[in-house]
Amino acid sequence: MTVKVNRQWCLAARPVGAVKESDFSLQEKAIPSIEKGEFLLRTRYLSVAPVMRNYMIDGAGIEEPLAIGDVMRGRGVGEIVESRNTEWPVGTIVQGKLGWQDYAVADGAPGSLMFAIRQTVAPIATGLGVLGMTGFTSYCALKDIGKPKKGETVVVSGALGGVGSTAVQLARLMGCRVIGIAGSNEKCRLLEEKLGCHATINYRDQDVGEALSQVTPDGVDIFFDNVGGSILDQVLLHINKYARIICCGRISEYLNDEPYRLRNWGEIGHMCAKMQGFFVYDYAPMFAEAEATMAEWIASGDLTYQEDRLEGLEMMPTALIRLYDGKNVGKQIVHVS
Amino acid sequence: MTVKVNRQWCLAARPVGAVKESDFSLQEKAIPSIEKGEFLLRTRYLSVAPVMRNYMIDGAGIEEPLAIGDVMRGRGVGEIVESRNTEWPVGTIVQGKLGWQDYAVADGAPGSLMFAIRQTVAPIATGLGVLGMTGFTSYCALKDIGKPKKGETVVVSGALGGVGSTAVQLARLMGCRVIGIAGSNEKCRLLEEKLGCHATINYRDQDVGEALSQVTPDGVDIFFDNVGGSILDQVLLHINKYARIICCGRISEYLNDEPYRLRNWGEIGHMCAKMQGFFVYDYAPMFAEAEATMAEWIASGDLTYQEDRLEGLEMMPTALIRLYDGKNVGKQIVHVS
Repeated sequence: MTVKVNRQWCLAARPVGAVKESDFSLQEKAIPSIEKGEFLLRTRYLSVAPVMRNYMIDGAGIEEPLAIGDVMRGRGVGEIVESRNTEWPVGTIVQGKLGWQDYAVADGAPGSLMFAIRQTVAPIATGLGVLGMTGFTSYCALKDIGKPKKGETVVVSGALGGVGSTAVQLARLMGCRVIGIAGSNEKCRLLEEKLGCHATINYRDQDVGEALSQVTPDGVDIFFDNVGGSILDQVLLHINKYARIICCGRISEYLNDEPYRLRNWGEIGHMCAKMQGFFVYDYAPMFAEAEATMAEWIASGDLTYQEDRLEGLEMMPTALIRLYDGKNVGKQIVHVS
Repeated sequence: MTVKVNRQWCLAARPVGAVKESDFSLQEKAIPSIEKGEFLLRTRYLSVAPVMRNYMIDGAGIEEPLAIGDVMRGRGVGEIVESRNTEWPVGTIVQGKLGWQDYAVADGAPGSLMFAIRQTVAPIATGLGVLGMTGFTSYCALKDIGKPKKGETVVVSGALGGVGSTAVQLARLMGCRVIGIAGSNEKCRLLEEKLGCHATINYRDQDVGEALSQVTPDGVDIFFDNVGGSILDQVLLHINKYARIICCGRISEYLNDEPYRLRNWGEIGHMCAKMQGFFVYDYAPMFAEAEATMAEWIASGDLTYQEDRLEGLEMMPTALIRLYDGKNVGKQIVHVS
C-alpha cells in the first residue's frame, strides 16, 4: 500500500491495568525530509513486545519513558527509500528502532543499534524475530547466563512465545533436556511435536510443582524464565545446586498492580544458584555469532520459528494487546507494507 | 584443662522452632586411638554458625543431615597431640572440622578441608574467624560475586556479625562506600566508629526503605546479604542497574516456619541485576590469597576483628543459641582448652 502521509501511533494515555486501544491515537503527519548523513526508511514490518507497557508508563528502568503524544517506540524492518548517507544506500534492508509509523528517519550511528540484515536464508521479517532481538535474546542469555552443558535439564516458561520458542530449541540443539511450560494443551502439543521439548507442563491445567517432580526427577539446572510469579516460585523448589535462573520476562506481572509475593527466594542462596537479569543490547558483540549460528540451524531445518502476523499498521495496538492476552503463537509481528 | 575422656555434644532432637539446650546431649567417650596415616587433635577453639540449625534438620542441602546421636558438626582450631602421619607432626596447629568435642581424629586428606595455620600475625583463634572460613566467606564472595569497583556503594546486612563485619571492612579497603545494617544503635555506633562504615541503618528503629533513600542517594551496587527477608526486599527497591546481590545468609528466616514473601524480586530482572548464592568451600583455591591479603591488612591495622568468646566446651549450645538471639558481637567462638 502506498501512502502519501506518515501515519503514527502515539501514546494517548498511560495504561491503568490492562493496555487498551484508547491508550493510543493514530495521527497523520507529513513524510519527513532528510538531512545530510540521514536516510528515510519505509517500514515493512513492526514487532511488539511485553516490555512496551512499561515504556508507556515508566521506561522500564531501561529507556526513557515515553511522553504523552510521543510516537510509540518499537523495532521494525524497513527499506531505505531515500538516502543522503553513502554507507546506507537506497534499497538496503535494515532492522532497527523505527517506531510505530510508516516512515522513519535514521542516521545509522552505532549507538542507534540499527543494522543491515545480512542473512539470506530466511525472509526479512525474521529480523524481528528469530534472527533479530527476540532470537538474540534467547541465544545470548542462554549462553551467557545459562552456560548450558550437555545433558543438563533446562526449563523454559512462556515456552511458545517469541523468546521462549527459540530458547527451547537452542537448549535442545546445545544438548540439553528441555521442558516447556505453556498455557494450553495445544501449545504443549506444538512444543513437543514441532519444537522438540522432551516434556511439557500446561500451567493452567496442571499443578506446576507436582508436574515438575514428575518431568524433572533430576532437578532443574537452568530456568529460562519469561513469566515470573507463581511459576518461578514452583521452579525454585526444583532447582539443582549451582542452577542458573535467567530473568528474561515477567509476563505474569505486567497486569498486576501489586507484585506476586515470592515464597521460595531462599533457594537461590540455599542451592548456590544464580538468578540474573540482562539487557539484550549489552550483548551486541555476540549478535553476529548469534545470527550466523542460528541462520545455519535454520538452513539445516533444526531451528524453526513461528510468526503470528497481522496485516496493516492500524493493527499495532491489537497486536500488543494480544500478547498480554496470551493469544499469539510465536513472535507477534505486523506487516506494514 | 586436661580431660581424661572425650566429651562430645551430640544431637538429641531435631529443633522445632528455635534451637534449645535440650536438642543436645553431652556424652563422655574414650579418647580415640589413631591408625597409620591418622593424627589426634586436641580441640583448642570451636566456632558456631547459623547454618548449624539446618545441619540438625536436613543438612541445608549442602551436607549430609546429622542423625540423632551424631556428634555435632563444626569447625575448630586444634593442636596435633599424637600423629602417625609424617606430614602432620605433633605440635602443628590446624583448622578443620573437629566437631563439638575435646578430641578428634583426622588424616588431613585434601577433601577434608583441614589445613595448617600459616599466618603468624594474629592469635590462632582467628583461624575460626577473620582468617578462617568466616573471613574467607566475606573475601571470596565479595570478590567473586560482588566484583567491587572503586566508588561503588556496598550495603551489608548483619553488618556486625562474623561475616558482615569483615565484609564491611573489606569493601571499604577495596575503595567502596559502605553502609552497614544492624539491629541496635550501639552496633551502628561500632560500625561507624570502629569498622569505618560511611553510614548505618538500625533496622529495628528505622524504616529501612526510607533510610536507604537517605544514605544511598546514588543507589546500591552491591548488597552483601546475611539476613534476607524484609531487609532484602527493601534493598531490592534501591539497587542500581547491574547490581550484584550476594546471598550469604538468611538469618531472618532460620526461625520461621513459613518463609518471608518477597515482594520486589522483579527488580532483579528489571535492573539487569544478579543475585547469587555460593558454597564457601568452592572457593578453596582463593583461600591462600584471602589469608595472605587479610593478614597484611590486619598487620597494618586496617582490618580489625572481634570475637565473642565463651569459655568451656559445655557452652557450645549456649553459643549457638546466642547467634539466633542476635546477642553475639563479632564471631562467636568457644575456648575449649
